[in-house]
Amino acid sequence: MRLPPSWHRRRAASPYAQPFVLPGSSPSAQGNPTQLPSSPCSPCWGSGRAPGHEKWGVSADGPTLQVAEPDLLKACAGADVLLFVVPHQFIGKVCEQLKGHVKKDAIGMSLIKGVDEGPDGLRLISDIIHEKLGIEMSVLMGANIANEVAEEKFCETTIGCKNAQYGQILKELMQTPNFRVTVVQEADTVEICGALKNIVAVAAGFCDGLGFGDNTKAAVIRLGLMEMIGFAKLFCKGPVTPSTFLESCGVADLITTCYGGRNRKVAEAFAKTGKSIEQLEKEMLNGQKLQGPQTSAELHRILKSKNMVEKFPLFTAVYQICYEGKPVTDVIKCLQNHPEHMQRGPAFPTGHYREARP
Amino acid sequence: MRLPPSWHRRRAASPYAQPFVLPGSSPSAQGNPTQLPSSPCSPCWGSGRAPGHEKWGVSADGPTLQVAEPDLLKACAGADVLLFVVPHQFIGKVCEQLKGHVKKDAIGMSLIKGVDEGPDGLRLISDIIHEKLGIEMSVLMGANIANEVAEEKFCETTIGCKNAQYGQILKELMQTPNFRVTVVQEADTVEICGALKNIVAVAAGFCDGLGFGDNTKAAVIRLGLMEMIGFAKLFCKGPVTPSTFLESCGVADLITTCYGGRNRKVAEAFAKTGKSIEQLEKEMLNGQKLQGPQTSAELHRILKSKNMVEKFPLFTAVYQICYEGKPVTDVIKCLQNHPEHMQRGPAFPTGHYREARP
Repeated sequence: MRLPPSWHRRRAASPYAQPFVLPGSSPSAQGNPTQLPSSPCSPCWGSGRAPGHEKWGVSADGPTLQVAEPDLLKACAGADVLLFVVPHQFIGKVCEQLKGHVKKDAIGMSLIKGVDEGPDGLRLISDIIHEKLGIEMSVLMGANIANEVAEEKFCETTIGCKNAQYGQILKELMQTPNFRVTVVQEADTVEICGALKNIVAVAAGFCDGLGFGDNTKAAVIRLGLMEMIGFAKLFCKGPVTPSTFLESCGVADLITTCYGGRNRKVAEAFAKTGKSIEQLEKEMLNGQKLQGPQTSAELHRILKSKNMVEKFPLFTAVYQICYEGKPVTDVIKCLQNHPEHMQRGPAFPTGHYREARP
Repeated sequence: MRLPPSWHRRRAASPYAQPFVLPGSSPSAQGNPTQLPSSPCSPCWGSGRAPGHEKWGVSADGPTLQVAEPDLLKACAGADVLLFVVPHQFIGKVCEQLKGHVKKDAIGMSLIKGVDEGPDGLRLISDIIHEKLGIEMSVLMGANIANEVAEEKFCETTIGCKNAQYGQILKELMQTPNFRVTVVQEADTVEICGALKNIVAVAAGFCDGLGFGDNTKAAVIRLGLMEMIGFAKLFCKGPVTPSTFLESCGVADLITTCYGGRNRKVAEAFAKTGKSIEQLEKEMLNGQKLQGPQTSAELHRILKSKNMVEKFPLFTAVYQICYEGKPVTDVIKCLQNHPEHMQRGPAFPTGHYREARP
């Protein structure tokens, strides 16, 4: 099936003129391939609709051509859909540049995994973009390690989109035979998953470093998932349902992050060597910041202000071990009295983090 | 804290006089330790209440003493609670022996992971026991690899119990600081998880053998989980809710089985060597049968008779690869058109395996 010509107008804004591929676009078939959600080189790209092509295209093969465009404004001029893929600390600057230069009825989708810290606590990256550019935002999160996506190895992803019609458009834009998309309405839940999983991965790494086995690691992942659900319920304005955590953005992304991923790796080294997170960031990440510990610190401030620290023992233990000198073994200790196991009396629980528990 | 004397009356029926430990009972502190849910040597054990001790005991340390009792009937005489831990093919025989020898108001709990095949399709082990002995049954399932439990490494488990009061009793009986219990009402769901996970582990093993990465494996685990939910909805008489799959019996046990576990291991060898499952069972398992392929065959018969094969592409692919000579790569192919990704149109899905999908 041929792509409608409009898809060939997809452009990539890349200030470093470094190209990248979309899922489904075979690196070998193209001139300039690299990766999808990667380094600072690809701040965003826009999908333009050519004049005369008013219908959204659908393709079994997925989009196959992008042109690297170093000028952000040129790349986004006239774009109907904007995808944001930058490290989260750069998003403010990118939005400042774009302000006043995007179509009013454009829609945006963020692939950025992380949260920002505002004066009133955590802020979703999609909210920041929406606020600065005034466009409707969706998110895409999932078990999508970049180099495997580029190699066209089968994977799934989740689009969180409050508007059902836009969700369908975005799905058709992104889906290929090896990059399968599910759309859910709980966009905030989908986005917060992408940030919180890194804290759980740190706990999983501690677990590995301490020499615990498969049972313990599975318990850490599951209890971490329960705290993710609990925190999402606390934080998100809309509904938060357990089934969203069964999507790729939830349990699948959590699994890959807790088995692969650098948060797990550095945390394992932390438990084994006794070096500080800062020191390990220097040695193992070339000075780049590890997201899990940072996010745990941001969460800790919020939980403290809401007087809810002891409802999130795993998140709290990660923070205290990374920044307050608590022993690494606390990661297990804290789980032994986890609220998840504290149900008592004849009444069955009716949901996770039920209010009725003592 | 000392245990109430009634706990010291716990007895183990072991025809081979081979002893075992309960979680929380330190092997080093005991005379005869081995493992909890192990080989044919421990068909069942009973917890007897001593005369004059009418209250169920609760202990922060958990039960600490079992006496190996080679005579099944002696071990179970007067028992208030019977735990069943035998390979599932032996359960019929054990029940025949016990018939007429257990207290009428005794309650039972099965730790047996597997299902049986009756003339009308799958049968839960707990249903077989209930039918033969007339006692009320619960189940215990979770990420509980036996040797790690015996080493007192932290883990969790799930008790599925339809009666809330019994659930509390069983929780207090089993829980220790390193063996944490959650009780849920959907007992059938909990039990079916323990059987279905092995099919998913076979698919995960294929994936490893084919050299796919973390993204693909996470997708296989997640889509397997979705099929487990779908099949549970089809099979269980009572309600089946996504949150039950977020318990240890669901996602946690699935993770350990898909990363560790012999189903994964043999399936990996199958993909790499091209040898038959039967051959690999001989070489790698000393002729013992692998549960995953067997369960996939039992499921396939049911799905075929209900005309629902294509709603369970992963379960079906495992069967066809193991027994019908389909190529191993089909495990990925089948996922590319998985019903989970087939949602279309503006309406959002409202649950897993929604009827409305085309």
